[in-house]
Amino acid sequence: MSRTEHDLIGDREIPESAYWGVHTLRAVENFPISGRQIGQSAELVAALAAIKEAAAKANEELGHLAPALAEAIARATQDIREGALHDQFIVDLVQGGAGTSSNMNANEVIANLALEHLGHAKGDYALLHPNEHVNLGQSTNDVYPSALKIALVFALRRLDSAMDEIEHAFRERAHAFAGIIKMGRTQLQDAVPMTLGQEFASFATMIAAERHALRRIEAELCVLNLGGTAIGTGITADPRLGELTVVHLRQITRLDLTLAEDRIAATQDTGAFVSVSSGLKRLAIKLSKIANDLRLLSSGPRAGFGDIALPAKQAGSSIMPGKVNPVIPEVVNQVCFEVIGADVTVTLAAEGGQLQLNAFEPVIYASLERSIRHLEHAMQTLARNCVSGITADAGALRHKVEQSIGIVTALTPYIGYVRATEVAKRAHETGLGVARIVLDEQLMEKDTLDAALSASAVLGNAA
Amino acid sequence: MSRTEHDLIGDREIPESAYWGVHTLRAVENFPISGRQIGQSAELVAALAAIKEAAAKANEELGHLAPALAEAIARATQDIREGALHDQFIVDLVQGGAGTSSNMNANEVIANLALEHLGHAKGDYALLHPNEHVNLGQSTNDVYPSALKIALVFALRRLDSAMDEIEHAFRERAHAFAGIIKMGRTQLQDAVPMTLGQEFASFATMIAAERHALRRIEAELCVLNLGGTAIGTGITADPRLGELTVVHLRQITRLDLTLAEDRIAATQDTGAFVSVSSGLKRLAIKLSKIANDLRLLSSGPRAGFGDIALPAKQAGSSIMPGKVNPVIPEVVNQVCFEVIGADVTVTLAAEGGQLQLNAFEPVIYASLERSIRHLEHAMQTLARNCVSGITADAGALRHKVEQSIGIVTALTPYIGYVRATEVAKRAHETGLGVARIVLDEQLMEKDTLDAALSASAVLGNAA
Amino acid sequence: MSRTEHDLIGDREIPESAYWGVHTLRAVENFPISGRQIGQSAELVAALAAIKEAAAKANEELGHLAPALAEAIARATQDIREGALHDQFIVDLVQGGAGTSSNMNANEVIANLALEHLGHAKGDYALLHPNEHVNLGQSTNDVYPSALKIALVFALRRLDSAMDEIEHAFRERAHAFAGIIKMGRTQLQDAVPMTLGQEFASFATMIAAERHALRRIEAELCVLNLGGTAIGTGITADPRLGELTVVHLRQITRLDLTLAEDRIAATQDTGAFVSVSSGLKRLAIKLSKIANDLRLLSSGPRAGFGDIALPAKQAGSSIMPGKVNPVIPEVVNQVCFEVIGADVTVTLAAEGGQLQLNAFEPVIYASLERSIRHLEHAMQTLARNCVSGITADAGALRHKVEQSIGIVTALTPYIGYVRATEVAKRAHETGLGVARIVLDEQLMEKDTLDAALSASAVLGNAA
Amino acid sequence: MSRTEHDLIGDREIPESAYWGVHTLRAVENFPISGRQIGQSAELVAALAAIKEAAAKANEELGHLAPALAEAIARATQDIREGALHDQFIVDLVQGGAGTSSNMNANEVIANLALEHLGHAKGDYALLHPNEHVNLGQSTNDVYPSALKIALVFALRRLDSAMDEIEHAFRERAHAFAGIIKMGRTQLQDAVPMTLGQEFASFATMIAAERHALRRIEAELCVLNLGGTAIGTGITADPRLGELTVVHLRQITRLDLTLAEDRIAATQDTGAFVSVSSGLKRLAIKLSKIANDLRLLSSGPRAGFGDIALPAKQAGSSIMPGKVNPVIPEVVNQVCFEVIGADVTVTLAAEGGQLQLNAFEPVIYASLERSIRHLEHAMQTLARNCVSGITADAGALRHKVEQSIGIVTALTPYIGYVRATEVAKRAHETGLGVARIVLDEQLMEKDTLDAALSASAVLGNAA
Repeated sequence: MSRTEHDLIGDREIPESAYWGVHTLRAVENFPISGRQIGQSAELVAALAAIKEAAAKANEELGHLAPALAEAIARATQDIREGALHDQFIVDLVQGGAGTSSNMNANEVIANLALEHLGHAKGDYALLHPNEHVNLGQSTNDVYPSALKIALVFALRRLDSAMDEIEHAFRERAHAFAGIIKMGRTQLQDAVPMTLGQEFASFATMIAAERHALRRIEAELCVLNLGGTAIGTGITADPRLGELTVVHLRQITRLDLTLAEDRIAATQDTGAFVSVSSGLKRLAIKLSKIANDLRLLSSGPRAGFGDIALPAKQAGSSIMPGKVNPVIPEVVNQVCFEVIGADVTVTLAAEGGQLQLNAFEPVIYASLERSIRHLEHAMQTLARNCVSGITADAGALRHKVEQSIGIVTALTPYIGYVRATEVAKRAHETGLGVARIVLDEQLMEKDTLDAALSASAVLGNAA
Repeated sequence: MSRTEHDLIGDREIPESAYWGVHTLRAVENFPISGRQIGQSAELVAALAAIKEAAAKANEELGHLAPALAEAIARATQDIREGALHDQFIVDLVQGGAGTSSNMNANEVIANLALEHLGHAKGDYALLHPNEHVNLGQSTNDVYPSALKIALVFALRRLDSAMDEIEHAFRERAHAFAGIIKMGRTQLQDAVPMTLGQEFASFATMIAAERHALRRIEAELCVLNLGGTAIGTGITADPRLGELTVVHLRQITRLDLTLAEDRIAATQDTGAFVSVSSGLKRLAIKLSKIANDLRLLSSGPRAGFGDIALPAKQAGSSIMPGKVNPVIPEVVNQVCFEVIGADVTVTLAAEGGQLQLNAFEPVIYASLERSIRHLEHAMQTLARNCVSGITADAGALRHKVEQSIGIVTALTPYIGYVRATEVAKRAHETGLGVARIVLDEQLMEKDTLDAALSASAVLGNAA
Repeated sequence: MSRTEHDLIGDREIPESAYWGVHTLRAVENFPISGRQIGQSAELVAALAAIKEAAAKANEELGHLAPALAEAIARATQDIREGALHDQFIVDLVQGGAGTSSNMNANEVIANLALEHLGHAKGDYALLHPNEHVNLGQSTNDVYPSALKIALVFALRRLDSAMDEIEHAFRERAHAFAGIIKMGRTQLQDAVPMTLGQEFASFATMIAAERHALRRIEAELCVLNLGGTAIGTGITADPRLGELTVVHLRQITRLDLTLAEDRIAATQDTGAFVSVSSGLKRLAIKLSKIANDLRLLSSGPRAGFGDIALPAKQAGSSIMPGKVNPVIPEVVNQVCFEVIGADVTVTLAAEGGQLQLNAFEPVIYASLERSIRHLEHAMQTLARNCVSGITADAGALRHKVEQSIGIVTALTPYIGYVRATEVAKRAHETGLGVARIVLDEQLMEKDTLDAALSASAVLGNAA
Repeated sequence: MSRTEHDLIGDREIPESAYWGVHTLRAVENFPISGRQIGQSAELVAALAAIKEAAAKANEELGHLAPALAEAIARATQDIREGALHDQFIVDLVQGGAGTSSNMNANEVIANLALEHLGHAKGDYALLHPNEHVNLGQSTNDVYPSALKIALVFALRRLDSAMDEIEHAFRERAHAFAGIIKMGRTQLQDAVPMTLGQEFASFATMIAAERHALRRIEAELCVLNLGGTAIGTGITADPRLGELTVVHLRQITRLDLTLAEDRIAATQDTGAFVSVSSGLKRLAIKLSKIANDLRLLSSGPRAGFGDIALPAKQAGSSIMPGKVNPVIPEVVNQVCFEVIGADVTVTLAAEGGQLQLNAFEPVIYASLERSIRHLEHAMQTLARNCVSGITADAGALRHKVEQSIGIVTALTPYIGYVRATEVAKRAHETGLGVARIVLDEQLMEKDTLDAALSASAVLGNAA
């Protein structure tokens, strides 16, 4: 059972059950690339539906769309936003055509669902047409980038919640480790003492900084080019349509959306997407650094740093019995490498835009969507399967501090940099402790020495 | 219905129907990242099975494995290589643990299928154990990178076939366009004449060069570290095992496989993967350049270059009626941007290897597998949906050559660079043709001029 | 003539004339890499001097440094900030040691200049010691990243001024081109009309957006970790030193500097540098896109777009007489490619930080410094040698609009998308104008048609 | 004192002493970007001179150039190849115009030097003209890329020599450390024993592999497009010129140079440059990995791995007395990050080529030249200032092996993977040694155990 649809190339049969139409079919045939369909990005489908609903309402208010049609469109888009028919958004996320096929897919599915709501058969476009009604006063070139921006805001909020989880996992461990003194290290060399709590708190602080940075980017995503149609000049659209659509869209999405002042610039400009990608990359850099640190700190157990122990989550080796590996930080690193690579993809796509439009926004979105999704999963497994189960042996850590040469730094206010260097050198050569050498050589009184090496002194003003 | 399996962390229930076991289950729980399972990479599953089969045969010959067990393992691996049970390879392609979970997943599925072949229940590991028999004398650290290499050779051969298709599509158009003269351009400025056939032949030549470059890399992938076990020293393995396994593996895969001389270096070295990534990136650069050229050459139809027309494959715009866009080259560009980004991911993962092993090989493979797959699809759609349907208007192109200033270059052997510059300047200022100016100013005789501007002269020795 | 200096490795002769000392000498020998010395970055030298001055004043107020010494140090740093002795900062910008050699070089030059101001010989460190006095209460690990941040703020302000120049060059051309109607293009295909003024205004708008984005990043650079010393705990430093140093530093630099709350995080965190790099990359993407557009728009002169003409700045070819190439946009593109590559360098360096410190800040700074410098030069030459001299042929551009098929878009509110598609198709097949077909087929009245195609209608609400 | 020169833009005064002319002057004014001049790349100047000499000889033989002029040109180019006048090659390495200005600069300097050799004044171009004689039958578009390729071969040979140095430094240490047993590590966890000699030998092996890989790329660089002139069709050139020029060039350079079959493809194709960049990146990845390993292995001295000690090359800290940091490996890492970033620059430049030419070859060369130079310096300082002075404490390393849990792996052939896992678990929980547990639990006889743990057994077939 099928219906016939027509486009500028010719006629095609469409399965009766399909809500999508001929434009979608062409796109599916043209872009058999990644196998990942736009319908698998729930945020994108929801964003497209939201814009179509807002535009229908605005067109109705401006007298361009019959109330019955506007209402049918709105009902269809609401169904979709609530989860209906996502499996009908079948175009590959990686597509040519600057997103036209995504917009067309949305127009077709919404039109056909609205037709059904009106009691008509799918494909009865004379009544309600995907392009002439659902897309009224719109162009892919204003709808698609606007939908991507809204979808990214939604996705970043999901990510924020995973960031919250990992931040708090680190914070919780920081509290648990507050009293454990250990050697801090710079350039992988023993430096000066700190607490393990301070170390974990710094991880939490850095994640928190990334959350703030990503939230600042949200504002850039909320500036849309709706009403600009093909190239930002607004050709064919009622001059009031953009502003009015945004009014409705604010209500539907509860986001603080506005219109760009220069919509010609806004239509070709991918700066906001580049900012999101930079933000994700910055998070990936930080997260990868932290994963590296967790792997370093847990190295050993006997021929490594051994500052902490990660919870065993699986057998580490098919050949080395009992080996436990830092498998969760390792997968985090790898996701971060993907995100950093994706930033280069986004860069190339953004740089490749030409004249009044960037035709490569689909791969920008596909890359960002993947990065956000993988980062979310990576932080969740890191929080749940690793950080929360980290333990440390306070006694062993304290012992290493006492043995260390680095604590000589604490004595420089008393004996000076030059003499302290001699003490360090002697400690290194003899294997003796710093304190013993200082006392042997009568460089300091024992009381002063004890005070200089006390926890409160060495942990300094950050203790 | 389930069975209980045990690892160093404790007991877990495994569904009765599952061929995978407890190690796989842990990994699935630890790495819920990309949703893409190793079983979706048929080449990887086949490569793992091939190695396990070869190792079982080698172990049998060396007297370490009972013939009945070896045979059961071999039968299981053959089933899998023929397509069985790929849905049982459920670990995420993006995984921590340096591939241990992929190896474990393979060991478990093979053991359980072999057990069934022997008439036993799944999970009856006392008889045939995933680690002690299927993995005998092996380590993830020699099996996994070797499997990745073999899988990549298989995948690159699929890619080669898509390259063949696009190379021939360009070659076919080059023949069709052999007689069409047009302006060549350098720095986007009109330069000197050439044929459209020469232009398309150069696309074919460049693709052919990439095919050769990628084939050269295949040799690097055929050097394995089997027998090296954990770190390349071969601990626990019979010293003859590596060589003998490779003998069988050559037979099974029909690839020209060899062993690395320094297996300690080979176990930590990801150079061959980096080379594959570089090769894919080089292809992507070239392919993207060609896609850019196709878009430039077909720009217009009236306010662009208009040298060629791409076949219309879908409506180009939801708002601009009749607009036909270069949607296929656009999706090719985007895939190329992905591949270039993935090269950065591979770079980071390769650089991140530490000491005797690189723990980030899973993301290297996931990236390369995706790049190869998308490139394959992109070249197929480019060949089938675009290049083969390209047309050109020979008359219009010839007219532009005749109008051009660039043909003055052909006169420099007669009138010199300095005087030719004056002619060009006058042509530019007056809008007159070069030939007319040369005759007007009596710089050349008409006969000499005609000869100098004849097709055979201007197309030079490459005509 | 030389003096002998001593460090933990041994004695070395230092030329009498040198203000640098033994630590600098070691670094010069260890890091003969790029040939670019820290002294060639005037901003970095000034920033180091400013911090040393502020610290000396703070130490004096806290009673840790004798007023005579503090004053001598302050006088030396002021001389340096005014341009003295930059040739004494001879360590390679690309250096190991996490910046220690840069800090040491500064300490030594300042100490020796201060010694001279005090009437003593260079090298008379018993009186005023590079480490014990100039570096008092400081560590490379708080001084160096703080100096880099301040230096970057200075450098970004220079860049801002170049951005101002190019923004205004585009704005000026936008005014000059306000009345010139032309075809807008999407996906390199003729789309709908716009003015050349709108096109150039969009370039100005995008540069302005980048200026705002970069200015927002300045705030991140103004958060310092001074007082944190080695790892952020403030070991050896008076707890009040950091805050007091910043008070003086604000006065000296007139920047709105503050201290990080979590200085342990701040000492290892390179997020602010990553943000600068992202900001520069975003600018590079935009600038490269604009350079691409200028090259496209000026392609031709006869077989290209030919919308605009760039001023001839040099002979374009050693063989093709009279050829004028877009040499200035081309060099802009290349600088942008460098900046994008440098962002990957910064990413790797930031990701590579370990535990309490990032040892790779020198290459981060070397990369950012180069990117800023080249971008500044590129925008200056673009403004002065290219944009300001761009011209256009209004008549030719108008003619192309009238000939175009794309203007049919303006008729869709009257005849609908489906019928407009038929008109476009017929125009394409016959070569006829859209207006003529519409009238021939009696789709619209002549008056309505004229109104629909009037400049005010087609340029829409952005006109 | 100056002379007047003329180009298509107008007249300019040139300093009497300058060997460069008006085209060079324009370029210097247009491209004030990096401050690094082409004359600072001796290989590039030599390569340009070699091509000009070869072309002059070929043109003479073909009867296009008077013997006296050809001889004067040859003498000038020989002077330049021997080091003369490099300071006259003043165009910025980062330049627009696809290398035209580099070619023009060479043409002008050679012409003026040749004029002097002929007893004429500089600027007397009526006699010997930069374009009409020195550039006879050539175009920037065949000369420039050919010169870059030859220059890169020269530069890569310098690099090879630095690779030889570092390879041998590692090999020498491998011999010195042959008898030192230590724990190998995978995923930063204690794995199984190896010798420190094996570890250093694997570094040497990996460098050797990179040398071979880079040498293979040399062949790609030796395929030139000479004779193709503007776009590869050979317009204006004698059809025999390309081949004959290469014959002379082979003699001059002693390189195995050939002509590309499809010179139209060769003129636009940057594949060979991309291959060089990939090769340098692969080396950088490997070198950075090795630098990371050296830093890890020398971490401590008391709270790290402490497997080796790097020689102290400078004071490590301005605040922490006696701290010695891995400053040389750190600078190596940073150079590698630069090289990896430069590969992205090259990628963008290669991808950005359009139609018959790539206008971005200058930045490709500038990037590769910098990468090669920095890598050369980095490997030299690594060999001389670090690797050759590395030491190890054999006793301490042996002690860690004996203490380790990882040696249980050596027992799996005797007690099986499952039981060995139990032993490992108990060792971990109790802190006892593996051997003691095995004997206590009577899992093996003492003799068998000793044999199983003997050096020859654990170091396996790679010992």
